[in-house]
Amino acid sequence: MNRTAVDSHENWLDPEDLEFARRRLPILYVNAVPTRVDDTGVVTSVGLLLRATPQGEIRRELVAGRVMHHERIRDALQRHIEKDLGPHALPQIPASPLPFTVAEYFPTPGVTAYHDPRQHAVALAFIIPVAGDCAPRQDALDLAWLPPAEAADDALQKEMLGGHGILLRHALAHLGFPPAP
Amino acid sequence: MNRTAVDSHENWLDPEDLEFARRRLPILYVNAVPTRVDDTGVVTSVGLLLRATPQGEIRRELVAGRVMHHERIRDALQRHIEKDLGPHALPQIPASPLPFTVAEYFPTPGVTAYHDPRQHAVALAFIIPVAGDCAPRQDALDLAWLPPAEAADDALQKEMLGGHGILLRHALAHLGFPPAP
Amino acid sequence: MNRTAVDSHENWLDPEDLEFARRRLPILYVNAVPTRVDDTGVVTSVGLLLRATPQGEIRRELVAGRVMHHERIRDALQRHIEKDLGPHALPQIPASPLPFTVAEYFPTPGVTAYHDPRQHAVALAFIIPVAGDCAPRQDALDLAWLPPAEAADDALQKEMLGGHGILLRHALAHLGFPPAP
Amino acid sequence: MNRTAVDSHENWLDPEDLEFARRRLPILYVNAVPTRVDDTGVVTSVGLLLRATPQGEIRRELVAGRVMHHERIRDALQRHIEKDLGPHALPQIPASPLPFTVAEYFPTPGVTAYHDPRQHAVALAFIIPVAGDCAPRQDALDLAWLPPAEAADDALQKEMLGGHGILLRHALAHLGFPPAP
Repeated sequence: MNRTAVDSHENWLDPEDLEFARRRLPILYVNAVPTRVDDTGVVTSVGLLLRATPQGEIRRELVAGRVMHHERIRDALQRHIEKDLGPHALPQIPASPLPFTVAEYFPTPGVTAYHDPRQHAVALAFIIPVAGDCAPRQDALDLAWLPPAEAADDALQKEMLGGHGILLRHALAHLGFPPAP
Repeated sequence: MNRTAVDSHENWLDPEDLEFARRRLPILYVNAVPTRVDDTGVVTSVGLLLRATPQGEIRRELVAGRVMHHERIRDALQRHIEKDLGPHALPQIPASPLPFTVAEYFPTPGVTAYHDPRQHAVALAFIIPVAGDCAPRQDALDLAWLPPAEAADDALQKEMLGGHGILLRHALAHLGFPPAP
Repeated sequence: MNRTAVDSHENWLDPEDLEFARRRLPILYVNAVPTRVDDTGVVTSVGLLLRATPQGEIRRELVAGRVMHHERIRDALQRHIEKDLGPHALPQIPASPLPFTVAEYFPTPGVTAYHDPRQHAVALAFIIPVAGDCAPRQDALDLAWLPPAEAADDALQKEMLGGHGILLRHALAHLGFPPAP
Repeated sequence: MNRTAVDSHENWLDPEDLEFARRRLPILYVNAVPTRVDDTGVVTSVGLLLRATPQGEIRRELVAGRVMHHERIRDALQRHIEKDLGPHALPQIPASPLPFTVAEYFPTPGVTAYHDPRQHAVALAFIIPVAGDCAPRQDALDLAWLPPAEAADDALQKEMLGGHGILLRHALAHLGFPPAP
């Protein structure tokens, strides 16, 4: 599926329609943890985006975005990774749409561990090795590659927005990395 | 989350709004394969719903339904199982929202193996042991419990609507049951 | 498979033979995180065994044990849960042998996050809801049921032996519980 | 881990010792389904090895082999893929050791869907995209790349040895491919 198809009128939501939908339906998302791996598949670093919040704070984030109408999960993954890491990242999109976890973000805090004040979003989360050159685009200030031991730091994870710290912690556990000592 | 909360005005979609959303967003579903298990967890039978199509044909189906706004996946599973199998089914809702597979139903045939002419739906699919008494409700005519070897029959699976046959086949593979000889 | 079959001569390893095997082969284990769940499947507490080490320290552990020759994974799970939690625990053995994670314990520290000085063990790890009465048996001093928020405490996890703390942390992440604040 | 380490005396099993172990312990295996993928991760073909049986029949097989003492699962995967597909296959070894399924092969037919007359083997099964040039080595006669629709053919799967047909069927279901019509 190419960009044009996704942006075509039938699939497009103007801000008002999206606002309408957000009050009435769970919105399907993909979340991605970009990684660098060695030739035995071991993760050597984890990519975190740096963004400025409207309040002017710098926060770390994972790749995240909405699945569009008539878009496959794999195409949504590729589109959002390209949007955030640039067109030369060469992501290894998984052969199956089965995520490593499902993160349920609720507008009400405390229903699950994940919180999104804007909406009820259900995110399929994937760990995505990228082999190419990454250049943060859009509104990201920078992309930082951290070794798993640094990414496992609780203080870092607690700084992350919207439950991304919990998702990162889960990803590291899934990959077999211990918590920071 | 109780039924009242889900049916309250904020979460409710009238048919026109649902129609609007279906043309603009992927709709989040849960799919469930009801099973009976023995005390070592081995599946001894699989539950299939019998429904009459608008054309008057009898077809087999799995449990399936929409996740509502502000509803957890586990609550959607429980609600749809209760709706289809009655209030005394005693389903074992999984401790984690991770499905055994994700089925992407497209309105256009051939994009994936799953097809739903009404909409683009993304279903998180679960195998759900039920320990209690089941009584089909709603528009289901009956509930048939088949041993895995019968459920593995290709002819049966091909009769099922909307890709449910493929999902059943995947569930049986996941459970370790071989195809029918 | 009943106990007798597993203990029969063909399947039995005397201590010397087990020692021989441990120096030459990875040994297959199951690990289990016993849980209590509410009727929507949410984990309300996690069961940890208390054991005295040979040095007289009290340590917390998960259920763990070897898979015997000609024993199914599900039978090994049931046998070890019965051994550690007693015969009335009523565990929900999973319908599929797919674990939530695979823990590779190496005799050399640092190869993976898991360490077992006695052997190279590969453990298939499962989260197992138990519905019945539990009574610790064998050499366990006690069984403590902790709410997930307490089990998520880093200090508690770091006290656990042989990488079980890392496995518990992973299980809690898999279940959607955040780290302790 | 390099080959030398694995082949060193400590880890080596002479045929007699292996025979001894096979009568007393489950033997840990890896199974791999080699695939070619397009740039959105969709599997475009599946690699099957052709081998001559001792009876002179030609049979199709997946990549399979034992995990050695002190060898990580990822290293065993890489070693067996290199052994069967040659040194230039460039396999994408997964970042996590979690398989897509666990196949329990019993020497007694009928205990599970998988059968291995030589031993009780427990195989962690992975779908492995390979990006490089493949050249069958060892005793494989050839490597055939089939499109998923051909690999989904029941007749082909039933010809495969030792339950590999069932594993292939499961892999195709996991990847979202329907059975052959």
